[in-house]
Order: sequence, then structure tokens, then C-alpha cells
Amino acid sequence: MKKLITSALMRAFARSSPHMRALGFELISVEAGVAMGRIANRPEFVGDPRTGVIHGGVVTSLLDSVGGAAVLGKLRRPMPIATLDLRIDYLRPSAPERELTARVECYRATRNVAFTRGFAYDGDPDDPVASMAASYMLRTQAVRRSG
Amino acid sequence: MKKLITSALMRAFARSSPHMRALGFELISVEAGVAMGRIANRPEFVGDPRTGVIHGGVVTSLLDSVGGAAVLGKLRRPMPIATLDLRIDYLRPSAPERELTARVECYRATRNVAFTRGFAYDGDPDDPVASMAASYMLRTQAVRRSG
Amino acid sequence: MKKLITSALMRAFARSSPHMRALGFELISVEAGVAMGRIANRPEFVGDPRTGVIHGGVVTSLLDSVGGAAVLGKLRRPMPIATLDLRIDYLRPSAPERELTARVECYRATRNVAFTRGFAYDGDPDDPVASMAASYMLRTQAVRRSG
Amino acid sequence: MKKLITSALMRAFARSSPHMRALGFELISVEAGVAMGRIANRPEFVGDPRTGVIHGGVVTSLLDSVGGAAVLGKLRRPMPIATLDLRIDYLRPSAPERELTARVECYRATRNVAFTRGFAYDGDPDDPVASMAASYMLRTQAVRRSG
Repeated sequence: MKKLITSALMRAFARSSPHMRALGFELISVEAGVAMGRIANRPEFVGDPRTGVIHGGVVTSLLDSVGGAAVLGKLRRPMPIATLDLRIDYLRPSAPERELTARVECYRATRNVAFTRGFAYDGDPDDPVASMAASYMLRTQAVRRSG
Repeated sequence: MKKLITSALMRAFARSSPHMRALGFELISVEAGVAMGRIANRPEFVGDPRTGVIHGGVVTSLLDSVGGAAVLGKLRRPMPIATLDLRIDYLRPSAPERELTARVECYRATRNVAFTRGFAYDGDPDDPVASMAASYMLRTQAVRRSG
Repeated sequence: MKKLITSALMRAFARSSPHMRALGFELISVEAGVAMGRIANRPEFVGDPRTGVIHGGVVTSLLDSVGGAAVLGKLRRPMPIATLDLRIDYLRPSAPERELTARVECYRATRNVAFTRGFAYDGDPDDPVASMAASYMLRTQAVRRSG
Repeated sequence: MKKLITSALMRAFARSSPHMRALGFELISVEAGVAMGRIANRPEFVGDPRTGVIHGGVVTSLLDSVGGAAVLGKLRRPMPIATLDLRIDYLRPSAPERELTARVECYRATRNVAFTRGFAYDGDPDDPVASMAASYMLRTQAVRRSG
């Protein structure tokens, strides 16, 4: 029951973000500190027209947002959070026209900071296109919130 | 003269990227390994509607792209490049409705990898909203290109 | 059989590094792209005498070295490698007088770059003290080698 | 006058760290959020005996410590700090037998987190061997302190 409520809240949260809505972001699941989400591949996401590869910033938006959901799923009660820093390793070009899925785990939360790691992939989860490690400030006060 | 040609090439490059065009990205200048670029603040860039703060992924798209331009401005001849990894530190929330400017320096290029550092700001360059460090692979072969 | 040879080679490699020898580094295992290693806790590793907590640089030395071993364990044949970049998240202070163990996975290797992720812990592997993500250049030419 | 007091305090702080003392760390200066420090090159710092290149962990220890000094130099009053995360880019191998110097700037401090960037070099400051970006938690409670 608790999980269902959390997921419903999280989906509402995802829909409330204008940028994630503009990207067509869909939150797939949030449970036990692990979140998954995806975005369709749209022509305006392409970084280089010669290759059809998605721009890294779109991949980062996806991973950052799924990471925020993983953190919120890990916490016992809702609170404002903000991405503190984020590292992306680009492993290979994404295939043209494939949707992107991200899976991020919040593997530790202290009083003030939560830590996440995850991958984005365009098909096979074992052949990711990008790896991510990010930390999030908790209990931020009406400032930058991840979304 | 050389600088003018480079800038013209770079502007064409920036315009050729569907995602950067969709973001309204404008390359301001490229010289001696330092590039500047900006994006207007649009409603669909907002991450959290309660605060009006821009989504971190948009800031990352901007910094990644300006970083790629700085690398190309540093190299003696054009070649395909690809973002290898990127780290963003979010320093403070951006102010609502402000345009974002990024300044990135390519401070070192080896045979295979170029290294960059930069900031994004929404007004005062000395009060940045985000700091970035990224490395780019050079001479990539028909794979992911930064755009 | 192949695994035994690799492990023997790797142990020799670890012993050949003056700094890792000075830290008392011991390579525990290398297989299928996953390496483990440890260092004893010595008084001269302490960063702050009031807390007894190990200096972050020692944790980084350990993770960097185990990461190099994971990369070499993943490659089909020996070749010189060099750490390209490394990110450490410090999750919590290590307990005084505990030995540190690191487990690092090389989850992807391309022609020129290998990517790793891992943790260091002082007892329970599920309660790590630090998280690491690093990339390594392959086929480096008589330059900086990870050790 | 204030600067002299700060420097004296900082030097005492540096000497109090067993690990930094073991590395022969010397704090050169701390002012206005910029700190400099150095370590001699010792045989036991070498990572690979074939090249004589210093192990990356030693470079990281140096940069982490100078970064902590830069943060303390930026703050208005002393407080416990702890490295939260740190990224190192290795730009080139250090030359054998050269001492290493680091210069790190704390370019922003918020209520809870301070952000730094810096370089380590083995001679010419404009030809660094490593670049660093790190963030530090402020007001930590008797936990991991940078040293």
C-alpha cells in the first residue's frame, strides 16, 4: 500500500515539472530507493544530425530526474531536495530513434545528503549508453529542487 | 581573420544541432580555447513550477555544448569529438526568467583527450549557478559527437 | 587456469608499485572485470588525530589501484593503462583502526577507455565509506600508469 | 594581521594531520579562499617503477588537503569540514623526482557546502599534471574531517 502511494505521489511530481513534461518523461517505478524512468526519442533531442545521436544534455536530464525520484523514494517522508553535483560518463553513442530508459539507485542517505548511481540505456540494460553518479542535498529551503 | 573563420564555422556547427536549436542556443564567441554561449529562459526549461528554477539538465546541455565549442576552438584543425565525461556542481538556484550564459575554457588538449572547465551564470559572471568540468575524446570515428 | 595466471600477474604488478607497497596494499582477487584489494589501517594514514578517521587520499589510492586491477582483469591481453579521471564520494567517516577493503568493477571497456565503479568499506560491504567512479585510458605509451 | 593569524592556524592544522605529516606536506599560503601547498617527491610515492610517475592517490591527498585549507581560509570562523566528493582529472604524468605543488581556490561557500577547484603541477603552473574539483560539507559533527 505504501509503495502505491509513493508511486502515485512520484508520478504527480514528475508531471508537475515543465521541463520533464516537455521531454515527455515518464516515471516507470519507484521502490526501495530504486527508480526507473524513460523518455521517447524525439527529433529535437538529437545532438548531431549526421549521427542521430541524442544530445548528452537530454541523457543528463533523464538521469538527474530519475535520481531525484530514487532519493525521494528512499526517504521516509517528503522533503525538498536539490541536485548538488552530478557526474556522467558517456559510454557509447545511443542508437538513433530508440527511447532511453534510466535506472538509478539511491544507495545511501545521510541527514543532509543522499547519494545515487545509475545507468541509462537504449535497449539492453547490460549495454548502457551512460553511467551516472550524483548527490542530492536534502531539506533545501525553497531553493533549487530537482525535478 | 583565422578567428572569424573559426567563429563562423562554430556558429554553423551550433545551428546544425537539432537539440541546441530546440533550446535556442546561441554561440557568442570562440577564441583561443575559450567559448561562450547562451540560452534564453523558456517556460519549458523550468524544473520545478513552485520555484521557477531551470532544470539542471538544461544547464548541462548548455555547458556541454559550450565545452565542445571550446575544444574545437582549441584544436588546430576540425575533427569529430565526443563528450567522455562531465561533472556539474550546482551552486545555487538560477533566478526565474533570466537567460543563462556559459563560459568554458579548454585548458589542455592531448592527442586523444581534451579537458575543459567552466561556469554557467544568470547575470553576474562572479556569482555562477553551476560549475562544470568535462573531458572530450578527440578523433572519434563516426560515433557520438558533442553538439 | 587463465584466472590463476592473471591473478599471479596482478599480484606481481601490485607488489611492483612502490606506493602501494608503502601503503601495505594487498590485492585479494581479480576476475571477470571485478577486483578486490585491501590495506591495513596504520597510524600514518589518519587524516585528523581528533577522530582517527583515515585521510581521503589513502582511500583514493586504494580505490584507484583496485580500479586499475579491475581494468587489467577485464582486458584480453596486458597493456599499459593510466587513470584518466576519478570521482570519489565520501559517504561516512571510516571507523578508527579498521582495515579498508575495496571492490571495483570494470563494467565497460572500449578501444581506448575503460570505465569502473566501486566502493570502499571498513567492515560491512553494504555500509561503504566511499563510492568511486573512474575511467582509464588504455594503450598509453610509456606515460603515467596506474599502480 | 588577520591573514597572519589564519596562516598560523592553518599551518598548525596541517601539521596536526598524521597522514599529511607522513607525506611531508607543507602549507605554503592561505588567503582569501586560495590555498597553496606542496609535497616533496619521495621514492615511496612512485606508482609505477618503470616510469617513476607519482601514484595518483598521492596527488589526490595533496589536492584534497589544500582544498580543505582553501575552504577554511574562505570561512569567517573555524568549523569542522569534511570532503563530500572530489573529482580528479589526470592531465599528464608527473616528471620523476619533482616536488608537487597544488593551488586550490574555494570559489563559493554556502551555508552547508563549499566548492573548490584547483590544479597540481610539478614545475610550471601553466602545465599542470592534474585538475581537481571538490565539494566540502561544513559544520560536520565530530565526523570525517579533511586533513
